[in-house]
Parts: sequence; C-alpha cells; structure tokens
Amino acid sequence: MSLEDRVRELAVEVQPSGEGAVAEAGERHLALAKPPGSLGRLEGLGARLAGMAGESPPPVPGSPAVVVCAGDHGVLDRGVSPWPREVTAAMVGNFCGGGAAVNAIARTVGARVSVLDVGVAGELERHPSLRGARVRPGTDDLSRGPAMGREEAARAVLAGAGVAEELVESGGVDLLVVGDMGIANTTPASALISALTDHPPEETTGRGTGIDDETLNLKVRVVREALELHGPDPADPLGVLAAVGGLEHAAIAGVILMGAACGVPVILDGVVSNSAALVAGALAPDSLGYVIAGHLSVEPGAKIALDHLGLEPLLDLDMRLGEGTGGLLAVPLVQAAARLLVEMATLEDLGFG
Amino acid sequence: MSLEDRVRELAVEVQPSGEGAVAEAGERHLALAKPPGSLGRLEGLGARLAGMAGESPPPVPGSPAVVVCAGDHGVLDRGVSPWPREVTAAMVGNFCGGGAAVNAIARTVGARVSVLDVGVAGELERHPSLRGARVRPGTDDLSRGPAMGREEAARAVLAGAGVAEELVESGGVDLLVVGDMGIANTTPASALISALTDHPPEETTGRGTGIDDETLNLKVRVVREALELHGPDPADPLGVLAAVGGLEHAAIAGVILMGAACGVPVILDGVVSNSAALVAGALAPDSLGYVIAGHLSVEPGAKIALDHLGLEPLLDLDMRLGEGTGGLLAVPLVQAAARLLVEMATLEDLGFG
Repeated sequence: MSLEDRVRELAVEVQPSGEGAVAEAGERHLALAKPPGSLGRLEGLGARLAGMAGESPPPVPGSPAVVVCAGDHGVLDRGVSPWPREVTAAMVGNFCGGGAAVNAIARTVGARVSVLDVGVAGELERHPSLRGARVRPGTDDLSRGPAMGREEAARAVLAGAGVAEELVESGGVDLLVVGDMGIANTTPASALISALTDHPPEETTGRGTGIDDETLNLKVRVVREALELHGPDPADPLGVLAAVGGLEHAAIAGVILMGAACGVPVILDGVVSNSAALVAGALAPDSLGYVIAGHLSVEPGAKIALDHLGLEPLLDLDMRLGEGTGGLLAVPLVQAAARLLVEMATLEDLGFG
Repeated sequence: MSLEDRVRELAVEVQPSGEGAVAEAGERHLALAKPPGSLGRLEGLGARLAGMAGESPPPVPGSPAVVVCAGDHGVLDRGVSPWPREVTAAMVGNFCGGGAAVNAIARTVGARVSVLDVGVAGELERHPSLRGARVRPGTDDLSRGPAMGREEAARAVLAGAGVAEELVESGGVDLLVVGDMGIANTTPASALISALTDHPPEETTGRGTGIDDETLNLKVRVVREALELHGPDPADPLGVLAAVGGLEHAAIAGVILMGAACGVPVILDGVVSNSAALVAGALAPDSLGYVIAGHLSVEPGAKIALDHLGLEPLLDLDMRLGEGTGGLLAVPLVQAAARLLVEMATLEDLGFG
C-alpha cells in the first residue's frame, strides 16, 4: 500500500463526534446550579468535549501533551524571513533543553513536550523528547517547483500521526496540542490557506516573526508565484500540501487526523497549525469535530483559516510565536469546561429544582 | 480611630508598583529566544508583574486563592432579579461543599477557595473555608435610602482586607482572585459604575443572571432613582459605597487594597469586582497597579468600568456567572507570563546574540 493510501485509510478511520452526547451535555448545563448560559463559551466547549468523548459528562483531560513539529523550508532562499535557517535546529535543541517559551508554558499547564523532526536541515542531538522522523532535510523552494513529492508529504503526515498514536495509546495522553517550528514556515502556511480557502495572498500573508514592508511585499509575491505555478486543486489536499506546504504542516495534519481517529481533542496553535487543520479537514471533514482553536494569532491568515473551518478561538492575546504556545494556554480552559460538567451540583441538589 | 480612618490608613499603605522593574522586564523580553513582541500581551503582563513584585524577573505565583465575598441586597425587594434571596446562602453552602462552578475551576488551576460572609441574610453552617464577618444581614434598599452606613461600608472593606492579609501573611498566597455572590448584586454594581464613571444607568445596567426586558427596564429605573436620591460624590468613594453599593462590593475593594499593600497581584472577575475596583482605585489610585482584569463579563457595565480603569481583560468568553470563575481562568495566563521571564533562554544562550 502506498503511503498516500495509508493517509486515506487514516482519514476513513475518523468517526463523527457524538451528537447525542452534545445534546445531553447541553441539557446538563441547564440543570446545573447557575443561571442558564452564564458560563458562556465554556458551556458550548464542554458540550463539544462530550461529543468528542461520546459521553456526557466528558472525562476531564488530565494528561495533555504538545507535539512540536519542526521542519525547514527551501523558500527561505527567496528572502522571506530575516532569520537564518540554523535557528530551526537551534530551537529544536532549546525545546529539548527546556528553555523555550513552549517549555515554560507547558510546565505552567502541566503538559509534556514532544518534539518531532520531520524536516530539519541541520544536525540534531539525540534527546528523549525528540522523535526523529525526518522525511528530508527541508523542502524545496515552493515558488520554483513543488515543495516536496506526494509520497514525502504523505510520509510526514504519517509521522505526525505516529507520534500522536504513541502518545495516546502508550502514553495515556488525553489532550493533544499542536505546535510548529521552522524558519520561513508562515510562507507555506499562507500558500496553503490561499489554496484551500480561495483568499488571495495579500489577505493570507502576514509579517510572521516581524518582517518589514519590503519583505512582506516580497513574501506576498512569492506566495502568488507559487499559487500561479502549481494551480493547487483544493479537492486534492495531499497534492496541495506537496506543492506549496511544509513538512511540519503535514505532520500537524497527521496529529489532527490521529487525534480525531482516537477520539482525543486536538488544540490548535497559530497560523501554521490553522493551515494544517485546513488540510486535515479537507482529507477528513469529520476530524474538525475534534479540533479546538486555542488562540487567534496576529497573522491575518489565521482568522481566514479559522473562519473557513467554523472555529472560534478561545484566546486572543496578540501572540505570533508558534511552538504550540498559544494552544497550550487554552489547556486549562478545556479542562475547566469538562470539569464543570462533571463536578458541579445541580439546582435540584441545592433544593431549587 | 474610626473604621473609616482605618480604611484611609490602609489606602495610604499602598505603594506605586515599580517602574524600574517594568522597564527591566521589557528589556529582558527583547533578549529572550523569540522574535521581539511575539508573546503579545503576555509580555506586557509579565512586565506588570515585575513592577508589582519590584523585581525582574518577577516570582512565579505558585499559590493562588480566590476570595468569594457574599452579601444580600435590600433592593431585591424592588424585583430586580427573579431569584429568591435564599439562593445567596445556599450558594455559600455550595462553595463550602465544593460543588459550585468556582470550586471546579479552582481545582483546575490549583487555587484554594476562601468564602467571606460580610452580609448574607440567611443562616450559614460553619465551615473551615468560610470566614464569618457579617456586618449586617444584607443591605437596605438603595433606591429608598442609603444601602448601609459609612462605618458599615468601612467595616466590610476591612473584612475583605483582613482575609486577604491572612491569606498572604499566614497562608503564603501570592496571587489573589476576587469573586462575588449575592442575589441582586449587579444592581449596586451598576449604580457604583454610574456614580464613579459618570455613565448613565441605561449604559451600565445589564441582564445579570438573564432577566427579561421588563425587569431590565425596572432595574435601570431603580438605579436611576438611587442616583437621583443620593447624588453620590465620586470624590467620596466610601460615601458612594455606603449609599449605592453592597457589602460584598466593599469587601472586594478591601481585598484589592490589601493585595496592593502587600505587593500581591489581584485578578478581577466580572462586573461586581470591576465596580469594586473603581472604589479601590478611588480610595488608592496606586492600587490599580496591582490589579489584573481576568475577563470581560457580558454585563455592559464591565467594559465601562475596565475602560475607566485603563485595564484590558485577558479573556472574553461571554461569561456572566461571577463567583470568581472568570478571574480564576486567568490564573494560568498570569503564571505563564511570569514563568516565561524566569525560565526562557536568551538568543545569546543559543549562540544568536
């Protein structure tokens, strides 16, 4: 079986989340000791968690993990980012050493950090937190040719799925967060979002790490050239991914698909994971039933992707770092949404039934 | 010394937060291993925490507590809420029993729950989590006369301050969250906000637990009558509190003042705590340097109060329950903001200095 067929098989394994449990959780919220609706968006989130688990109340996720998927990008040669390619490998080392923003936030919310190399260009030291599944040392320049081959894209998707499966099946993880690292990776994110939502590059392309006007104009041009060169077909998500995506984008799509297949909620981070969710949703529409938008990135493509997916972000803190940082900050909100359904007394319990 | 003088003395104890430490934290954020500004609002929040602690990086708050202040309201007799007065005492019992929303969220974020009775009308069972400091069994109807006397308002402020002091000095608490319980307590909150921001009652009054149009019109009328009757003077915050406030509003102002006096951050919850922060800020403007807006309540007065205070809420989840629920959800964001400053590697550490 080709790798591409294995991705299709994974997509077929995803079952719709349970509407019965969603309705049951909604009814439970009306019975709890509070004015109806007063817990706002936590009520709808709790109901969605019930749907994902297929039972109301849903279990309270007690074992979250972030999967930081890392890769490099040939398109960096076009000058779309001022940061050198070597930063990707250095930051992977920093994730393993515990000194990055994602580590500090993971410690705050009690999540473990798992790092997945699907496409870093530099050498990496071995580390217990690092899974080596490098498909190739970075993509090719997507503005001059396909970023990678279809089988390579499929291999990166399966690498992400494999890490997610291991964390859930062997590691007891019950809440996944996706993160990304890769210098220049907002360029393929914008290209993916343009290709899959039909918004032009001027709307989906932003300043990433903080580029100046000139570099932004170049970046928009590069994304436009890529779209014109490949004419990516949204009905062929793996083809879109191979033509204008990135290896870590593919891996994140794989984490989402496997999380959904296992019935585990997956919290998105910023624009890179938002673009990957578009791919996952195109491969398996039911996977979106398990996806939670953790935060809204400053990148303009983020809002376009989330709107297209019908997801409303929980947090809006003007963040644009990636790594999984914004997604992790939403973990306590997700835990609280479930816990309220499990632990609150009802009005009847208090004698006001 | 009168109780009112003791409140003034407490207000004088509040020192401005440290601008030097704020600047130092801002510089540190520029050196950390990330694009400048990419952690968004967590960067400014971390700098504020450094200012509150008077050192950069600031300590990471590891021992949060929510103080839920409870009281009843004579104005309920006007029909401003459909809920019976007995719900206040029943919910205090529920807080002590651990079955309320505030308890579920406190467990999620690792906070302890402390309940303060400053003005409940019904009988309460003793409980280790409950501090009894009842000034009187509920206020009088603020639309017919003063809600309470000045010395009573001062006593409630000092009760809140006393609990905060005990939690910080003896309990090791390093992060305070304020919450409220009191059927009809959004009516005095609206009156306080109108009196202290000069916005008319139509703008500051909302549906509270979810009242219908007719009750909302009545509630606006009641607030207007109260303001016309008392003509409260914003230059006399204790007088405003006594005329149109509530006992739990006063206690929350006391928690804020004592938190600020101890250099401990205080996270606000919804509209009741927002109105209390206006009182605290009027008594001691420097106390606002220690105040963090946890979330934006649906109540229209919340945004008016926070805008007046110059505070931007961290969360906006359409919540309107009170109890401290929205404030507690911001605890991990505050902890993360401090932890990032303490634990992140610098670009120089990674060889990119």
